Amino acid sequence: MFVNTSPRYEILSEDALEVLDKGWKRLVSEIGIEFMSPWALEMLAAAGQKVEGDNVKFDPEWILEQVAKAPSEYQVHARDPKNTVTIGGKNMVFSGVYGPPFAMRGKERGNGTMEHFRNFTKLCQVFPEMDSAGGVIVEPDDAAMDSRHLDMTLALQTLTDKIYMGNVVRGENAEDCLNMAGIVFGGREVLETKPVMISLVNCNSPLRWDDRMLDSMKVYCEANQPVLLTPFLLMGAMSPVSIPATLAQQMAEAFAGIALVQLIRPGCPVIFGSFLSNINMQSGSPCFGTPEAAIGLFASGQIARKYNLPFRSGGGFTSSTMPDAQSAYEAMMTMMPTFLSGVNWVMHTAGWLEGGLVSSYEKFIIDIEILRMLQETFKPLEITEESLAFGAHEEVGAGGHFLGAAHTMERFRTCFYRPLLSSSDNYERWMRNGGHDAAERAGIIAAQKLEEYEEPAMDPAIREELEAYVVRRRKELGD
Amino acid sequence: MFVNTSPRYEILSEDALEVLDKGWKRLVSEIGIEFMSPWALEMLAAAGQKVEGDNVKFDPEWILEQVAKAPSEYQVHARDPKNTVTIGGKNMVFSGVYGPPFAMRGKERGNGTMEHFRNFTKLCQVFPEMDSAGGVIVEPDDAAMDSRHLDMTLALQTLTDKIYMGNVVRGENAEDCLNMAGIVFGGREVLETKPVMISLVNCNSPLRWDDRMLDSMKVYCEANQPVLLTPFLLMGAMSPVSIPATLAQQMAEAFAGIALVQLIRPGCPVIFGSFLSNINMQSGSPCFGTPEAAIGLFASGQIARKYNLPFRSGGGFTSSTMPDAQSAYEAMMTMMPTFLSGVNWVMHTAGWLEGGLVSSYEKFIIDIEILRMLQETFKPLEITEESLAFGAHEEVGAGGHFLGAAHTMERFRTCFYRPLLSSSDNYERWMRNGGHDAAERAGIIAAQKLEEYEEPAMDPAIREELEAYVVRRRKELGD
Repeated sequence: MFVNTSPRYEILSEDALEVLDKGWKRLVSEIGIEFMSPWALEMLAAAGQKVEGDNVKFDPEWILEQVAKAPSEYQVHARDPKNTVTIGGKNMVFSGVYGPPFAMRGKERGNGTMEHFRNFTKLCQVFPEMDSAGGVIVEPDDAAMDSRHLDMTLALQTLTDKIYMGNVVRGENAEDCLNMAGIVFGGREVLETKPVMISLVNCNSPLRWDDRMLDSMKVYCEANQPVLLTPFLLMGAMSPVSIPATLAQQMAEAFAGIALVQLIRPGCPVIFGSFLSNINMQSGSPCFGTPEAAIGLFASGQIARKYNLPFRSGGGFTSSTMPDAQSAYEAMMTMMPTFLSGVNWVMHTAGWLEGGLVSSYEKFIIDIEILRMLQETFKPLEITEESLAFGAHEEVGAGGHFLGAAHTMERFRTCFYRPLLSSSDNYERWMRNGGHDAAERAGIIAAQKLEEYEEPAMDPAIREELEAYVVRRRKELGD
Repeated sequence: MFVNTSPRYEILSEDALEVLDKGWKRLVSEIGIEFMSPWALEMLAAAGQKVEGDNVKFDPEWILEQVAKAPSEYQVHARDPKNTVTIGGKNMVFSGVYGPPFAMRGKERGNGTMEHFRNFTKLCQVFPEMDSAGGVIVEPDDAAMDSRHLDMTLALQTLTDKIYMGNVVRGENAEDCLNMAGIVFGGREVLETKPVMISLVNCNSPLRWDDRMLDSMKVYCEANQPVLLTPFLLMGAMSPVSIPATLAQQMAEAFAGIALVQLIRPGCPVIFGSFLSNINMQSGSPCFGTPEAAIGLFASGQIARKYNLPFRSGGGFTSSTMPDAQSAYEAMMTMMPTFLSGVNWVMHTAGWLEGGLVSSYEKFIIDIEILRMLQETFKPLEITEESLAFGAHEEVGAGGHFLGAAHTMERFRTCFYRPLLSSSDNYERWMRNGGHDAAERAGIIAAQKLEEYEEPAMDPAIREELEAYVVRRRKELGD
């Protein structure tokens, strides 16, 4: 697990934070938030909030009381206890891309399949830098619609021993996920004190939580599983063309959602989510890795810390259709701010291409390289008398070189970051090695890593029970 | 000119800064610095420093007194006064890649030529984000060795009206540069109060200033032209395999050089330079865009500010041989820290490829995109009541969209960053447009921009005098 002990980069003044506070308070109290599930409206009305139709006008102080009930730090347990993570504080947890309908490998771009799903899941298991494959690392179009959550969950549970995410398509799917987690972790009741799954609940922005998401959320909250509440904000479409307005809206939506979670189960673990970018105002397409997204990330992290909430944002975003230069500078343009603002739960860390429509093997490896570089950059720098290596200077003197110095010889294996993908070969050597660009080399590395993959051991009885559950439920679902 | 009003990212504690201070003081006083020019040794001896052979052991307190004479902020004047820049403070000035012997365009990689030199210089003139073409944007192999500084200076003076850099190959070249600047700016004596040229003086690290650089430096200092003193530190070769040791060495070398400058001419403008990366310890190749370089940049900026010195570092570094994904994430890996540490004079901003051996047209455009994105990211964010766009929410309500909102319509042209190179086209549209990756599109943009280039006007009498000077001097130099 990566702990980011470096300073945070903060751009908001106290005055700016106050303006934003006034902003979200005005939104929740004067315009209100819509909740599309009747049970949610009933609960909020019973808690004294003003409900008219689907609209709820909130007392902002009540929201803050609710938000204060959310824990600022908690564990999510993995099948292998050494992969258990802590969410919140200085911890950063990294999970794979989530949701792409397509997969791309080399020049081949096609529908997602279970084979691709399994491959990407294996890649997340292989790389120690990744803490989770996430949930829907690619949408498997060849699996039956109503039961594919079973196939995906089985793959996540068996191909990795890291944490994973719960399915949120319907409340019924959430029940299946909890039942399957119960099989692996020794009973559903165990999960109550030992959360194992994070679930992504997106706001149907602006200012609306839909019933599908809310119903899944309720199932997870009642079982004390962490929920990640994320306003889905592409400025210009789902929010005004203004970063401050979007930040205030993000607070209004997320805080209202968190308040409901705490009403369902006080103390239920949550994550304050931010997915904030903008559309291209000339074409309407979503843009990723933009300056606006980086600014939003710096500001959102600061807001999450102000309210002691674990924070989700970031990822290897890009609009590019290929694992080219654009895909790389856009990914870095979001990932470095992800570290600078100390994001606790990083979704879409690796594999994201084409605005999230594609899971790319090559981009996955590029993103892992970026992740490794940044983990190295944001680790503590020890500056001590000894680190000044005065003896090496005495040995080498002026005009010499340190290649053979004793200080160097003792440290040369581990003194610097060793890249996975980047080449520093000179031109001649690079040509001799095939003259491959980074994307081609990334494809080769992905294939090698899939070769090296080993399935983590699982008690055969548990495995059998999981498979039987999937068979039975698939039948019940008519697939 | 770009003013970076955003906060700086600082990673060194007061304790760490003190350890580093002890470190450089011990180096200059116990090991000493070598100066390979007799005049420098004489001056330093006369100033009371201990000279033995080429080695000078310094009193660190004397060095600090000298360093304190350097101005923290000053102007460098351009032919067009609107392109005059301020070095120091919150200002960031961007210049082109410096020194590559090769040029690359598309798949063609070959020796640098004057045609390439002129093309890259024109590209720096065309893009308003660039403040300078720098000095040796590519080494023109087809121009005679002894007189090519004349060709390059003439190109820089006539093809751009921005600031440029002085040649440092020999003291005689520096004299030529001053004479040619005198022609453009109304006499050499004018330059004394109105500096027009920055010159790059690299330390022959470890701990040695060579005679070629020192002799050029002296010419520029005597004419009150700013000099940029840069320890050239690839850890593992020119400095120990330790970031703290390298930071202390950087201070020792730069401060000793600055002390000499202030002895030549008290108050002469300088820049504290940092060029700090590492070698690959397995192959010995230099690596760029590394975690170590980013950490070094954060720390070096903080050190420069502590001593009130204008700071040079950063650039679009990469080891990659191609304008591929690696070249882009490595460039961003240095350029974002360049902004975070508020570098005042950014060399190698655009065009750097293959560890600085190649000036690349495509990489130039990629770097300009990165530069534009970061200039947008680090501009002030105004958070006011009005910026919250409450009226837009009243208009749109829950579950709607902001595409047609009045607030959007009033702002859609300028509300977001508009990319130069990045595409957010969907896959089908991208394919219809030719299916070009970012490098291919960059090549197309470079060609367009060279088409659009217009030579800035120059008084024909000045032009004639410059050309006559070049002809005469070329003859004298025997080329």
